[in-house]
Amino acid sequence: MPIAPDAAAALVDRLADAAGWAILPWFRAETLGTTDKGAAGFDPVTEADRAAEAAMRDILDAERPEDGILGEEFGTRAGRSGLTWVLDPIDGTRAFLCGAPTWGVLIALSGPEGPLYGVVDQPYTGERFRGGFGRATLDGPRGHRALRVRRCPTLAEATLATTYPEVGTAADQTAFARVAREVRLTRYGMDCYAYAMLAAGQIDLVIEAGLAPYDIQAPLALIEAAGGIVTDWQGGPAQDGGRVLAAGDPELHRAALDRLAG
Amino acid sequence: MPIAPDAAAALVDRLADAAGWAILPWFRAETLGTTDKGAAGFDPVTEADRAAEAAMRDILDAERPEDGILGEEFGTRAGRSGLTWVLDPIDGTRAFLCGAPTWGVLIALSGPEGPLYGVVDQPYTGERFRGGFGRATLDGPRGHRALRVRRCPTLAEATLATTYPEVGTAADQTAFARVAREVRLTRYGMDCYAYAMLAAGQIDLVIEAGLAPYDIQAPLALIEAAGGIVTDWQGGPAQDGGRVLAAGDPELHRAALDRLAG
Repeated sequence: MPIAPDAAAALVDRLADAAGWAILPWFRAETLGTTDKGAAGFDPVTEADRAAEAAMRDILDAERPEDGILGEEFGTRAGRSGLTWVLDPIDGTRAFLCGAPTWGVLIALSGPEGPLYGVVDQPYTGERFRGGFGRATLDGPRGHRALRVRRCPTLAEATLATTYPEVGTAADQTAFARVAREVRLTRYGMDCYAYAMLAAGQIDLVIEAGLAPYDIQAPLALIEAAGGIVTDWQGGPAQDGGRVLAAGDPELHRAALDRLAG
Repeated sequence: MPIAPDAAAALVDRLADAAGWAILPWFRAETLGTTDKGAAGFDPVTEADRAAEAAMRDILDAERPEDGILGEEFGTRAGRSGLTWVLDPIDGTRAFLCGAPTWGVLIALSGPEGPLYGVVDQPYTGERFRGGFGRATLDGPRGHRALRVRRCPTLAEATLATTYPEVGTAADQTAFARVAREVRLTRYGMDCYAYAMLAAGQIDLVIEAGLAPYDIQAPLALIEAAGGIVTDWQGGPAQDGGRVLAAGDPELHRAALDRLAG
């Protein structure tokens, strides 16, 4: 049960719309209904997160019953078509809890080889970053534009983003610091918005650790469509998450890989 | 030459509009025209920053010639009225350079005792946070609402924001860390947006160091109008900048002051 690119893109838009409608009434609401997923760390799940994924799954259940689903909140549904819809209804739940508009809805359509198409959607600011099937675009409050990574071959000129200064394990932090001390500027707290800004040519590197597949598949499709590179810290595939290095410029990507390796 | 509250608020809106129009063509533009102010650190000044302050000063030159002006980019104009317009055209230039929508235009109207009215404006998201003359409000993409800080008496339940993990001097960092290790969540990279979110009841504490007067006077008016408290790290006045502690809850403010003192 394959799907044409236009139909896929239209369906992703419908999923993103449904997620945004489910989420926005909860954004900056007085009671967020947060719960912790477990004792291991601070990982709030909001009502919004669950409502948004449920809304997206309802659409997929009706329209794409043979495809798989991998969602942050409600797990995996096996498929028979070779296609999987990868859903993270709110990437950046902590940003969300602070009222900051750097969280996003992540939706990817993936095949056996990896993501084909992805959207990073920010419903509060009204920004939708789309990438795949040969193009990358933004629709937002300032209109429509094509997205393209920028040239930046050297660490000394680069802007680096990550969400928290505590990147992964102690060894991960040491590796991250080797990159961070060479760049022009390190920026924290951007969540999935950092990947969108990399695709938009505003920043040059994103380095994260401990990601899940649903955290990276949509950004991966977006960044590759905008001309960038996303790998793990050894230069291998990043679609399964873990430690991720995204860069706009291939020379910069090689330099960052080198520093991460030690 | 006094000014009525309604007239002051209307003029601040005009200043904010003028600043936004000057800035937005430069936001996420391909060439930012950045220059460093000096060799001491990374402090980009964009064309946008200068164009926005010039646009605001043009209005004030024409309409409020007897008031003082204190601006980030073009310095101080002495006044005779006892009133001063305090302008930071882009607070968060590094966020701006990354494409993140957490920068803002800060405008305060201050009297001899401190700020009377302040606006934190985010022209890209279309959010205008206003506070003073007895009320605090937000107009944004989701409409109009009153702003009110939230109750949160204990550090253990509090969300803390600061822009960079490196807060001020080494001693400042040590003091900051005493607060950060007791709170529920510390969030980086929000710039002036953090003060707006404190006024909106989304976060509980903002701690910064090394601020200029134009960095804090508009947030100060906004937060006080929303029911919060802004002081320096000793509990004294914060309007001159330096080390700033803002809190939504007076009990939490006392607890944070205590930890900052050591």
